[in-house]
Amino acid sequence: MKVVTAALIIIGDEILSGRTQDVNLNFLACNLSEIGINLSEVRVVPDLEKEIIDAVNAVRKKFDYVFTSGGIGPTHDDITSESIAKAFGEQVIKNQEAAEILIKHYGEKNVNEARMKMAMLPSRASLLDNPISSAPGFRIENVFVMAGIPKIFQAMFVAAKKELIGGKTKKSLEIKISLTESIIAEDFAILQKKYPQVAMGSYPFDGGTSLIFRSTDYEALEKAKSEMEVILKNA
Amino acid sequence: MKVVTAALIIIGDEILSGRTQDVNLNFLACNLSEIGINLSEVRVVPDLEKEIIDAVNAVRKKFDYVFTSGGIGPTHDDITSESIAKAFGEQVIKNQEAAEILIKHYGEKNVNEARMKMAMLPSRASLLDNPISSAPGFRIENVFVMAGIPKIFQAMFVAAKKELIGGKTKKSLEIKISLTESIIAEDFAILQKKYPQVAMGSYPFDGGTSLIFRSTDYEALEKAKSEMEVILKNA
Repeated sequence: MKVVTAALIIIGDEILSGRTQDVNLNFLACNLSEIGINLSEVRVVPDLEKEIIDAVNAVRKKFDYVFTSGGIGPTHDDITSESIAKAFGEQVIKNQEAAEILIKHYGEKNVNEARMKMAMLPSRASLLDNPISSAPGFRIENVFVMAGIPKIFQAMFVAAKKELIGGKTKKSLEIKISLTESIIAEDFAILQKKYPQVAMGSYPFDGGTSLIFRSTDYEALEKAKSEMEVILKNA
Repeated sequence: MKVVTAALIIIGDEILSGRTQDVNLNFLACNLSEIGINLSEVRVVPDLEKEIIDAVNAVRKKFDYVFTSGGIGPTHDDITSESIAKAFGEQVIKNQEAAEILIKHYGEKNVNEARMKMAMLPSRASLLDNPISSAPGFRIENVFVMAGIPKIFQAMFVAAKKELIGGKTKKSLEIKISLTESIIAEDFAILQKKYPQVAMGSYPFDGGTSLIFRSTDYEALEKAKSEMEVILKNA
């Protein structure tokens, strides 16, 4: 079974300036992992058209899916939709379906130009439902364009998820030890060589170390963990 | 005065799998911002040599400074130092100063191969002090290689900071309004055009919007904010 991969591009000066702590990366990582998709790269770029275009074009051919977060609101600093269109060599046009959603949400009289900007999407965009604040995200080819506000990002992911084809999910097993990692490093490296299909990582915490085993080969995973437990017992 | 820029490369499967929530980005963003350095791009890459090399080489010529976090421990999955060396066309060699620090910390009898691995650094590396757990970070040219564990990353930044030459710091001013951003979007965009030297961003929160003004031109900054306040009074 093929490994399915994804990238995330976080668009936002507010993340790079330190004003906002990103939480979309972790949400996406956990949720993709559950359906057998490996988040394989993340980039954070500022609200600059060229940077967005370059980042999208660098990753959309390399990975099966790309997600973007941020910059799809009504203000002048929201330039994601237009930048994504340009990355695909397209222009934005008024998306009729999105326009109707916005008119219904705001009411005919209250739809100003700024609000209607949120319906200006690449011509091939298909919408991603936004049950929180109505203005939709969208998909173009393998790129899913979603809001930066975490609860809207998460709601749009529910819509995006229906369109994703995952792979075999990785299982993760953990051994917690009270030793520092340098004590077990040599044995752990030998075990890693024996089981190349199991990704083994060592993560120190205050007072000990977490040994993490991750794989789509569940049999090898259990074996590797058991062997490490025997090694630790004899250590 | 020149704008000083930086990039961060976060190295770690544990971030991409969702196991760990990154906090180094936000710490670095805030601390660089205080000394007039703009964090301009962030990449998160897995523990794979080629990905680390490509990311480092993509950003080290584009930005004034590069910081990396993660992958400098004693276990087999810690491949940052070797990858950085390769990015610079170098090999790792035993750094005598680092070796002495490790021997002093662990005691002569307890220095095994895994621990000594943390002294295997690019030949041109200069050390960054690690007061928490002794194993040092290092600098090579404009690249600062630091630990992933937040409290060690933060401690190493204290050492790195002494070597950084910042620019004029941006000031940030905020206006909080109870309007949704689409109401003020048009006026805000006109104001942005009038003051191109002030970065203006609009960030919705539950019940209102934060308008953020950031600039190194403090006079323009105050003016832009005041004009927006007048606009809001008349809205």
